[in-house]
Amino acid sequence: MIGNKVLAVASAWALAAALPAVALAQAAPPPAAAPARPAPPPALGAGPWTYQTHAGPVRAEIVVRGLDHPWGMAFAPDGAILVTERLGRVRVIRNGVLDPAPLAGFPDIFNTGIAGLNDIVLHPDFARNRLVYFAYSANNPDNAEQQALQVARARWDGGGALTNWEVIFTASPWYGANDAPTRCCGQGPAFGSFGGRILFDPDGYLYVTSGDRNYGELVADPGNHIGKILRLNADGSVPAGNPWVGMAGHAPEVWSTGHRNPLGLTYNTLTGQLWESEFGPRGGDEVNRIQRGGDYGWMSVTQGFHYNGAQQEFVRNRPGKIDPVLAFGPPSLNPGNLAFYDGALFPQWRGDLFLASFTQGLLRYDTDVSGTPVGEPEHMLHDLGQRWRDVRTGPDGALYLISDMADGVLLKITPGE
Amino acid sequence: MIGNKVLAVASAWALAAALPAVALAQAAPPPAAAPARPAPPPALGAGPWTYQTHAGPVRAEIVVRGLDHPWGMAFAPDGAILVTERLGRVRVIRNGVLDPAPLAGFPDIFNTGIAGLNDIVLHPDFARNRLVYFAYSANNPDNAEQQALQVARARWDGGGALTNWEVIFTASPWYGANDAPTRCCGQGPAFGSFGGRILFDPDGYLYVTSGDRNYGELVADPGNHIGKILRLNADGSVPAGNPWVGMAGHAPEVWSTGHRNPLGLTYNTLTGQLWESEFGPRGGDEVNRIQRGGDYGWMSVTQGFHYNGAQQEFVRNRPGKIDPVLAFGPPSLNPGNLAFYDGALFPQWRGDLFLASFTQGLLRYDTDVSGTPVGEPEHMLHDLGQRWRDVRTGPDGALYLISDMADGVLLKITPGE
Repeated sequence: MIGNKVLAVASAWALAAALPAVALAQAAPPPAAAPARPAPPPALGAGPWTYQTHAGPVRAEIVVRGLDHPWGMAFAPDGAILVTERLGRVRVIRNGVLDPAPLAGFPDIFNTGIAGLNDIVLHPDFARNRLVYFAYSANNPDNAEQQALQVARARWDGGGALTNWEVIFTASPWYGANDAPTRCCGQGPAFGSFGGRILFDPDGYLYVTSGDRNYGELVADPGNHIGKILRLNADGSVPAGNPWVGMAGHAPEVWSTGHRNPLGLTYNTLTGQLWESEFGPRGGDEVNRIQRGGDYGWMSVTQGFHYNGAQQEFVRNRPGKIDPVLAFGPPSLNPGNLAFYDGALFPQWRGDLFLASFTQGLLRYDTDVSGTPVGEPEHMLHDLGQRWRDVRTGPDGALYLISDMADGVLLKITPGE
Repeated sequence: MIGNKVLAVASAWALAAALPAVALAQAAPPPAAAPARPAPPPALGAGPWTYQTHAGPVRAEIVVRGLDHPWGMAFAPDGAILVTERLGRVRVIRNGVLDPAPLAGFPDIFNTGIAGLNDIVLHPDFARNRLVYFAYSANNPDNAEQQALQVARARWDGGGALTNWEVIFTASPWYGANDAPTRCCGQGPAFGSFGGRILFDPDGYLYVTSGDRNYGELVADPGNHIGKILRLNADGSVPAGNPWVGMAGHAPEVWSTGHRNPLGLTYNTLTGQLWESEFGPRGGDEVNRIQRGGDYGWMSVTQGFHYNGAQQEFVRNRPGKIDPVLAFGPPSLNPGNLAFYDGALFPQWRGDLFLASFTQGLLRYDTDVSGTPVGEPEHMLHDLGQRWRDVRTGPDGALYLISDMADGVLLKITPGE
């Protein structure tokens, strides 16, 4: 999937040169000509960088570098920051210093292609029970050719190891490259499109994004977990209030359906709504407000094009299908995670939507009182050439990002001068 | 409050004559001239009536009559229908027959003016625990001049009595006519505007609408329950996930604020969202989609006029205040409850929004995939001259309404021929 999309970087660079919203203090020059193959990202300087934004000058600084394809992050009450790396490692940053040793106790996982360890989230009562949750791709213990998204939890006492590893959810069905049937439209390999974002809402429900495994034809089946957002209790059991509980032929964990690869998930604490970003086909990236029981259309409805260039049957405005609030491309922007800023450090950003992107830096949208983005986005950080995978409001009110690269960074944004 | 608003009936009748959406099989003629005082409602015939609607002919028939100002209804699993009467009685209808004796065990309550017994709802696990919940206005046991909205629950075994009466919530503060201070804009008496709708969502949370007690100045205080929608656990305790839990100066029961008199509340099972109808000042009736932590503006923002004719400072589009999805009048339509049709009997109505009105009959709106009403409403039943207080989808898929009058009826709508 990334192989298909990374070509968009060249045109995104050309686009970046024309973006008016942000004056860049240190802009990297766009390449002189669009390369035939993806150019290696520009080497990242030491920073810090200052950006002139709508909210005044902001300062971006590297907290740590040398993260290997980091994917998700979580803030512990004692100030430590936990970061997942895709190959299956959990790193700890204390007082701005990256512990060279990943946490022990994390099992070997399936990490071919872009599969691997995805998101991390702390239990709402972590301070007492020390439970940390992970989403990742796992091998079928009965058939090593098959994989599925899994969610597990473990205890972390703040030291160097995870203990009490417990798998609480496995997406159904197992599916792999060798038993992949004929699929339409040039869909990617079976080891992509796992989803893998997880979060707890204020009521303590655990939401899990599950991708279409590049087999979009499966999504229409309400009885599986493919291309769905799921809602679980903290122990992995099914909440009685889920929309399809008790209905024959329906997987009771499902909260919404019709998703391709939902790589971002956030809860807007200011409006009480769940939002998702989704990696579409060519030009079909989306941001969606997630309704209980909603059908977001994939794969019968998309504003993008299939990898083989074909257009899907329906584009928008189909009965019963919920259109995205934002749709991108072509070219795609390759969305990472998204976050509504709810900190105190940037009063002007309160409620604003931030969207991490592989190719267009960090996007900021003004929002109305319902949390709906309005107008055109402001762009930041795209001169840094980083593939921004995750963005969060930190407990200190700073904005934190990680870049999904071989030498990835944790970046921190604070008010500048 | 009703005294102030009932004058709108005359103009509503004039309006009704011009409504194009519904061809009336048996239309009552509008009065020849607008009366200076409210006309008594036309005597209601025996029915049934047939309406030609967008969904084809529908049949409206009286299930029972002789209800004394009924306010809310609930459908028991055995087919019985429970109806509250404002003075403080709970009536039971079995097989279409109204039991002449109200349920024993309901205490004396405060029922001056339009105060009294409001809504009723069954516990989600009623079949097992037999718990029924009520909202009503209560006297302060320490000061009979003061009242507040209360929520209580009791057991009903299906026979003639309620037992195990237990008050689980009392709105704060107590407030009454004798200690009413000077208030602006001709606000009504202290024994009005209690709210009083209650419902359980699929997760088992109990929502309670609480009116502004005609003292709108109180609503801006986040530390009280006046002009708020509240969220409770089934035992009356506070859910840990409520938006203002743990914040100094905030009542933790509050889910949303800025409401005047929220007389309707419904959960759209098809989209997972809470909706409310609200009795505004003159011309300020509203339908709102309720967000967690939302501020709906009263009393600084309203599209209506105060009873003394003054306009409020702000009308719409204020930062941080959520505008209504629908606003009515002048003239006001005096909204009752609202319901999204989710039954099987009228496939064409699935997802449509129905709004009961005192002066304009029953309104039906088409909705989009997010449950948002679109276009102009279709009107039904307004020729019957009834003050429609409540509307619900019954478990049989029929639409049920009750009329808040001295000789109120329970009406049932089914497909006609």
